[in-house]
Amino acid sequence: MNKSIDQLTAFCRDVFQHAGLSQADSATATAALVAADSWGIHTHGLKNLGGYVRRLNGGGINPLGQARVAAEGPAWAQVDGDASLGMIGSTFAMRQAVRKAAVSGIGYAGLRNSCHFGAAGYYASLAADAGMIGIAMCNDTPTVTVPGARGPVLGSNPIAYAVPAGKQLVLFDIATSTVAGGKVFAAAAAGESVPEGWIVDEQGQPTTDPASFPTKATLTPMTAHKGYGLALLAEILSGVLTGAAVAGGVLSYAYEDPSKPTNHGAAFVAIQIEAMMDRDEFEKRMQSLIGEIKTAPKAAGIQHILIPGEHEQKYKAKALKEGVNLPDDVWAKLIDVSASSGIALPAD
Amino acid sequence: MNKSIDQLTAFCRDVFQHAGLSQADSATATAALVAADSWGIHTHGLKNLGGYVRRLNGGGINPLGQARVAAEGPAWAQVDGDASLGMIGSTFAMRQAVRKAAVSGIGYAGLRNSCHFGAAGYYASLAADAGMIGIAMCNDTPTVTVPGARGPVLGSNPIAYAVPAGKQLVLFDIATSTVAGGKVFAAAAAGESVPEGWIVDEQGQPTTDPASFPTKATLTPMTAHKGYGLALLAEILSGVLTGAAVAGGVLSYAYEDPSKPTNHGAAFVAIQIEAMMDRDEFEKRMQSLIGEIKTAPKAAGIQHILIPGEHEQKYKAKALKEGVNLPDDVWAKLIDVSASSGIALPAD
Repeated sequence: MNKSIDQLTAFCRDVFQHAGLSQADSATATAALVAADSWGIHTHGLKNLGGYVRRLNGGGINPLGQARVAAEGPAWAQVDGDASLGMIGSTFAMRQAVRKAAVSGIGYAGLRNSCHFGAAGYYASLAADAGMIGIAMCNDTPTVTVPGARGPVLGSNPIAYAVPAGKQLVLFDIATSTVAGGKVFAAAAAGESVPEGWIVDEQGQPTTDPASFPTKATLTPMTAHKGYGLALLAEILSGVLTGAAVAGGVLSYAYEDPSKPTNHGAAFVAIQIEAMMDRDEFEKRMQSLIGEIKTAPKAAGIQHILIPGEHEQKYKAKALKEGVNLPDDVWAKLIDVSASSGIALPAD
Repeated sequence: MNKSIDQLTAFCRDVFQHAGLSQADSATATAALVAADSWGIHTHGLKNLGGYVRRLNGGGINPLGQARVAAEGPAWAQVDGDASLGMIGSTFAMRQAVRKAAVSGIGYAGLRNSCHFGAAGYYASLAADAGMIGIAMCNDTPTVTVPGARGPVLGSNPIAYAVPAGKQLVLFDIATSTVAGGKVFAAAAAGESVPEGWIVDEQGQPTTDPASFPTKATLTPMTAHKGYGLALLAEILSGVLTGAAVAGGVLSYAYEDPSKPTNHGAAFVAIQIEAMMDRDEFEKRMQSLIGEIKTAPKAAGIQHILIPGEHEQKYKAKALKEGVNLPDDVWAKLIDVSASSGIALPAD
């Protein structure tokens, strides 16, 4: 289903306002979700709107929650999300990291008492919008096993970064699991099996049935120990250090009783470039690096080597002109949201 | 070959002093190399001593180089390594990051004009020794391809972190390639083939012949795009932002003309825990997380789930009592160093 960015934005804002959010907060949360879809990351955008609304209606997310700085120092802030939407607290927290970095060169903001925040890369890109290098990560309810275990132990804890390089945005956003859970859900919705290695069954044996996730199957960590270690870093910086729930203490925003706060944590870092290097010089050096990568000898059959974020930027440029092509499973979920909220779907 | 930590330390110090380093700098560099061996990371310890000495003798590393803060702000420092040993500049730079974090909560230190620094995890552990969370990364001469390319494009750019958790040290150190080049060299030295997926040949096709690396074969990035993106982050924070050489501009410390500085870059971050959370509370939360992981249901045949760094700590505890078991290829290299420097090998 093709809809313009403006149409999707208006629909999402209306849904959030109908759920009790202020106009400003609705706009903030909508920007995060529509950005993900405009980049082609449909697993982390409007697809999850219904889940957020269910929890807003249930009381587990406070529509009037006000994220605030609970404690701060010269280059850090700890933010209490006040059980608001993950997108609200995370946007607020990354702005704190940027504010600290503007003064001190680098800033860290931790976030507790939050919820599922969508696409980590969006928050990293907020720092890049401010001319800074941004890093974002979070914890989540366990859906990923660790080497030696069977069953879920850690979340798929994503790590993202964004670097402004003139007109180009280097943007990288990964789950520390082999794949994000959203990709398994998408396969299940499409009636497809998943490649071996993505998930394991209750005994820790490989399975290709996406329908068994997450009740029986568990995601695998990226390359076993490397994904495990990176997920643990995100857990420590997002969960342990912030005062948020940790590992099994984090509730699923989608599956748990919607009256309960999930208490997700997240961590944001911003690095001011100008403090350390003339901006023109930095951009020249970035362009030189990007050029070196793009002009490297190609493997057989390859025409272009992609820089992280290049695909997302191309997708967005097309989306701005021609609209966003929402996958069927996302559109089906928006039909549900429209039916339950009474907010009309974007017209053709 | 089994030698005590004290024996290895004395030998390495003497070799560095013979190559013209001060007593203090010899001790600093030795601590980094012996730590790696004491953790069982023999690919990044004394094995490389001969390569460093060759470059010290050739002039590409300045034995009297003095790392210094070239520019700084409230929470950051840019360090010029003055073409000193990578271990000297990196130890100095992580101390700057710790110094900044002690004041501002978080500190970043960039390092340029440096050389191959050995085990990234060692520098992260220096922050943990100071009671902080430490993160370390660097760039290196290209030995790793990127998705769509054939031939080397980026270095195996490692990323490491360390977190103090009471008596336990969480310590994680990975190459962003599928495996570090050192593992391929070790296989070549042992006359073994490597698993498919570690390296590709000049056409980008899989090969299992370690002897073809690095002249013909190239390392693969971890899971293709994820390792590529993480290597790029390390390249940007270690190389682009610091003013060091970038990607193909970084020379190999082992293979290039030893009279030339390699101009490696590195990046170090320290996060002060007490600024943000009571230390006892942080340690309790870390122990709770560690306990949750270690008591997770085990996969068939597994007795213990390991926490990152647990293996290294056990190895070190054993090494302190019983000495370090150096692999044959490492010992062979120390025989060469002894022969060329005239410094006697540790006695039996």
